[in-house]
Amino acid sequence: MALLDEDRLFPVEPRTRGLARDIYRTIRDLPIVSPHGHTDPAWFALNEPFPDPAELFVVPDHYVFRMLCSQGIPLTELGVPRVDGGTSERDPRRIWQLFADNFYLFRGTPSALWLNHAFQEVFGIDEPLGPQTATRIYDHIADCLARPQFRPRALFDRFNIEVIATTESALDPLEHHRTIRASGWGGRVITAYRPDAVIDPEFEGFAANVARLGEITGEDTTSWHGYLDAHRARRAFFKQHGATSTDHGTPSARTEDLSPTEAAGLFDKALAGRCTAEEADRFRGHMLTEMARMSLDDGLVMQIHPGAFRNHSPAVMTRHGRDKGFDVPTRTDYVRALKPLLDAVGHEPGLTIILFTLDETSYARELAPLAGAYPVLRLGPPWWFHDSAEGMRRFREMATETAGFYNTVGFNDDTRAFCSIPARHDVARRSDAAFLATLVATGRLGEGEAYEVARDLTYTLVKAAYRL
Amino acid sequence: MALLDEDRLFPVEPRTRGLARDIYRTIRDLPIVSPHGHTDPAWFALNEPFPDPAELFVVPDHYVFRMLCSQGIPLTELGVPRVDGGTSERDPRRIWQLFADNFYLFRGTPSALWLNHAFQEVFGIDEPLGPQTATRIYDHIADCLARPQFRPRALFDRFNIEVIATTESALDPLEHHRTIRASGWGGRVITAYRPDAVIDPEFEGFAANVARLGEITGEDTTSWHGYLDAHRARRAFFKQHGATSTDHGTPSARTEDLSPTEAAGLFDKALAGRCTAEEADRFRGHMLTEMARMSLDDGLVMQIHPGAFRNHSPAVMTRHGRDKGFDVPTRTDYVRALKPLLDAVGHEPGLTIILFTLDETSYARELAPLAGAYPVLRLGPPWWFHDSAEGMRRFREMATETAGFYNTVGFNDDTRAFCSIPARHDVARRSDAAFLATLVATGRLGEGEAYEVARDLTYTLVKAAYRL
Amino acid sequence: MALLDEDRLFPVEPRTRGLARDIYRTIRDLPIVSPHGHTDPAWFALNEPFPDPAELFVVPDHYVFRMLCSQGIPLTELGVPRVDGGTSERDPRRIWQLFADNFYLFRGTPSALWLNHAFQEVFGIDEPLGPQTATRIYDHIADCLARPQFRPRALFDRFNIEVIATTESALDPLEHHRTIRASGWGGRVITAYRPDAVIDPEFEGFAANVARLGEITGEDTTSWHGYLDAHRARRAFFKQHGATSTDHGTPSARTEDLSPTEAAGLFDKALAGRCTAEEADRFRGHMLTEMARMSLDDGLVMQIHPGAFRNHSPAVMTRHGRDKGFDVPTRTDYVRALKPLLDAVGHEPGLTIILFTLDETSYARELAPLAGAYPVLRLGPPWWFHDSAEGMRRFREMATETAGFYNTVGFNDDTRAFCSIPARHDVARRSDAAFLATLVATGRLGEGEAYEVARDLTYTLVKAAYRL
Repeated sequence: MALLDEDRLFPVEPRTRGLARDIYRTIRDLPIVSPHGHTDPAWFALNEPFPDPAELFVVPDHYVFRMLCSQGIPLTELGVPRVDGGTSERDPRRIWQLFADNFYLFRGTPSALWLNHAFQEVFGIDEPLGPQTATRIYDHIADCLARPQFRPRALFDRFNIEVIATTESALDPLEHHRTIRASGWGGRVITAYRPDAVIDPEFEGFAANVARLGEITGEDTTSWHGYLDAHRARRAFFKQHGATSTDHGTPSARTEDLSPTEAAGLFDKALAGRCTAEEADRFRGHMLTEMARMSLDDGLVMQIHPGAFRNHSPAVMTRHGRDKGFDVPTRTDYVRALKPLLDAVGHEPGLTIILFTLDETSYARELAPLAGAYPVLRLGPPWWFHDSAEGMRRFREMATETAGFYNTVGFNDDTRAFCSIPARHDVARRSDAAFLATLVATGRLGEGEAYEVARDLTYTLVKAAYRL
Repeated sequence: MALLDEDRLFPVEPRTRGLARDIYRTIRDLPIVSPHGHTDPAWFALNEPFPDPAELFVVPDHYVFRMLCSQGIPLTELGVPRVDGGTSERDPRRIWQLFADNFYLFRGTPSALWLNHAFQEVFGIDEPLGPQTATRIYDHIADCLARPQFRPRALFDRFNIEVIATTESALDPLEHHRTIRASGWGGRVITAYRPDAVIDPEFEGFAANVARLGEITGEDTTSWHGYLDAHRARRAFFKQHGATSTDHGTPSARTEDLSPTEAAGLFDKALAGRCTAEEADRFRGHMLTEMARMSLDDGLVMQIHPGAFRNHSPAVMTRHGRDKGFDVPTRTDYVRALKPLLDAVGHEPGLTIILFTLDETSYARELAPLAGAYPVLRLGPPWWFHDSAEGMRRFREMATETAGFYNTVGFNDDTRAFCSIPARHDVARRSDAAFLATLVATGRLGEGEAYEVARDLTYTLVKAAYRL
Repeated sequence: MALLDEDRLFPVEPRTRGLARDIYRTIRDLPIVSPHGHTDPAWFALNEPFPDPAELFVVPDHYVFRMLCSQGIPLTELGVPRVDGGTSERDPRRIWQLFADNFYLFRGTPSALWLNHAFQEVFGIDEPLGPQTATRIYDHIADCLARPQFRPRALFDRFNIEVIATTESALDPLEHHRTIRASGWGGRVITAYRPDAVIDPEFEGFAANVARLGEITGEDTTSWHGYLDAHRARRAFFKQHGATSTDHGTPSARTEDLSPTEAAGLFDKALAGRCTAEEADRFRGHMLTEMARMSLDDGLVMQIHPGAFRNHSPAVMTRHGRDKGFDVPTRTDYVRALKPLLDAVGHEPGLTIILFTLDETSYARELAPLAGAYPVLRLGPPWWFHDSAEGMRRFREMATETAGFYNTVGFNDDTRAFCSIPARHDVARRSDAAFLATLVATGRLGEGEAYEVARDLTYTLVKAAYRL
């Protein structure tokens, strides 16, 4: 029995479904271009086996463990590591059984689709995960993981990944990327510059981070100009390791374009730990504009990911730390928030800024009108909670009429779950095929155009937008 | 001629429709579990005939009379009682004719579906209501109402209601519930604890209400601790009358977790009528957390219904009073608003808090991510303006991918229109069948799973969530 | 080869499609009633040929040139006039070629549909616009434009326009409207009163505009009462030129109902240029209520178009001026914002206020509940960025269940692109037919009702709401 329906995510009406299927066939096997994500470069540098099924599918995947947590299963029982000194479950078989017992909770979610895709397509499993099949499936996956064909580099090749970007902190030495390059292996793994830790005055250890940035770069990061130069140096270093983009995660889309004097003053306060919340926010907002200006010089594409209320539960944060499924989207405004940045650089040739959102209400109201006018702006794909069939449909329905297809940039898998990468790209390809088939069937797009657009959305646009 | 299409609300594509029909058939006849609503317990206590068709379908139904009002028909002509001493139309036949003359206004609304369902399924009517048929239909319904089979208890049985919850003010003596229990009748009618009148400093007569709470409970409600004890006593009294839940209608989802000293200080101010608007809001927010703490002790499930701007029109409020169709939803934020409550009790085993919204933008952005992480949270069904085919579809499409099905709690009819109860549950069952069939037809859910989930959404989840 | 699919915008399922087609056939040829738009009355007064294809389709159409701009094509190369003294491209053939080369950017947008509709239906073109066909299509259109059948009045007749409203500033002398009336031509072209320039203290030249209003009307517009009398006089003058409505474009939906003393005080400040931003906003809000009161006297229907952040890019504003595609919608609240106005006149018989929005989240949450209760309110059709197949679908899906059909007012084309008028009305008729067919196919509307509603949405409601 197959875990996957051959025609999944296609429209139900037979003629439109047939068209979607035809479109999909032409893009199904295109290489994966993954310009934004959180895979671990150590996998590709060291090429060691993944340890066990629980470590592969449960323990690091916040989509999975937060859903189980929401039904009363403690994170500790799922093996999520503790930062408070307590212990978590260490037996991967017990974790796996608990996961399997509760796998029905994922019904109707993209996680179910991704997991089933990985089970079937990566591991050749053909029976549904559940209480009775847990052990058999565990054994099968564990058996696979011990084999060379399931090591990271082999999977990379099998997944047909043309290029994948990881995301590293500005302070990261990038040694794994160096190792990969030195290894002679042909896989293209690049980094992206993520400077939140040295840009956000409210980040843990901000002053120490900035000091460290100074040490690494040899710049005097106690001065505003030295600090900016250190960013420049670090960006250049990231570029040397393949980076074509920077990435910025901010609580809101607020930008500022302050005078050098004011910016320097805020920077001094931030280093001294004396910023108010408003001043910290103002400084973060200004740094987005500084980063955009540096992009004008070095050509790095800028990604802005605003709108997550991070670490909403102090209990989980204290016990388990960051990124444990308790980040919640918030209402995000772009029109006023981006104005200082756009006033400064909104019409600059050669600059690309890719906007993401966790607030779908902004697609039709704000993001499409902005991206449908300003030459520097592009719309990132549906992100995080919206990286799903329904999320992708709403994105295309709400953004296309005003921004068109050519102000979008293809798909991001944005994942740390390696085996979900083919699944996620497949969902995007199917969803785009479904949307395009519907446009054709309703007379809004020529059939020939649909095939061209399908290829553009899958392959051409992402390479152009990210300069890959 | 039938008023109802046998396949109403099912997908149009034949294969998917067939599947929806098959799923629906397995849940169509399950008992109605109605955990939240506003039927009058006096109906079941006294079991008197409903007075006339106008009193049954028009006069008390704000969905109906506000639509007629919106087209210029005065509420007085529809028999809506006045609180300002003036008179309203008293002839039910004139009210009914006016209703029938304007029944076309309801085209495309859930009211039309509910009304036609009641006409056909409860009263056996097979011709559409309109100017020409008004009298004939009036006579037919009036004739029915005089018969024993149309008394409240008979309809209760005929509607296959397993249990229904009414909603009573904290000050209500619950004598009708006592009468029902004492009567020997087998129908299960339970209450729910709705303490707005003694929790909201801005409620009419707040201080007097709190004094009355003291009299009823024998507690000293002039002190903060006595006031809390009075709530505890009253909740216990409601539990004795079957309550398994509390219900809280607040302007926003704001919660607070104040120190006892600050809470007591605000309480004193509230009693003295000296709260500013901000202080009143702060106090309301804190009382939600107090109620949650009491739920930890007594096991009552907590329902939070925020976001209505009540009594928007002072003209209507002055003439007709509360709940006259002039309540309007407002933008409602949950992420920051609920944080104090969730910080306090968000991970408590055994606590259930059911969140409702009138702001659909929060489904995918805030509510599903919160309910998909915090163990105490569940999502209530689409509410009030969204209790409709489109509203239910949007809810499932926007909430399921992140929260799954198992963080939802089945359907609430939330109505005071008794004859609409079967209609509303039928709409929910059909909508769920349609959604599940679509998931199956698009490869997102197994067919066997769909039947299980259908039963869960109709019957299992509501009983579990509300502890019925 | 046809540019247009005969069945475009209809549902894909064959039975529902057939029904939509049947419904559409009954409304397809109804006359166009265009109660709100921005065509130039000079066209109909002077009846001169349109100059060339670029001037007809590219240069004045912000939907078109902003999309090209968003992909890096400077507005100057598209012939968009400059206000800063610089030059723009003047060769219409070069502009046209650039447009044609980039026509693929409009894939999936309503602009593509409108343009192809005009190419095929107005000009008889049957090959797609693109780099290779640009010249041939240019020549063909240019050839047509030289012929009498393509002059404005001939097109007006051919488009089957029963009545069209233009929009003029309160200071406009309306000489073109006088010319049209005096000409003996039978086309009905009426004006609408748009007083933003003399109501908004932040409008360029506000004080001079108000002084000019005084000169035109002979009222003393240095006094509050004279200013109001000048509005009354001007509204009467517009009524003489056919106006049945006023139109108000405001940053938000804020209304106020100030005391005469406060209003007069703000007016004095505004004239003196001493209003703060808050005071200017307060004054604008109050003037909406004044306009509503005047409508009570003179019967003009009031249109409120809030929510655009105008001229977002200062670079574009400085170079090219207003209305150049850089207006961006913002989040818009109605519930609190409209309360002062509704408290004042919300239940007045004979008053009609038509609400528009650029924030679709308000349809189900705020606008439908308000319009489904207050007798003075009606919902305008999906506007601007939402005047599209998806926009219309979302509007009907989100507004109908609470407001019904009869609190809506048919379609507005709202355009300055004359040749797009039949296309836009056709999109609306098809979208409504699709929606109604879906309701019938899902048992939510009787088939006979659907035909009646279709005619109402196309013809009856707009004439009634706008008193045409």
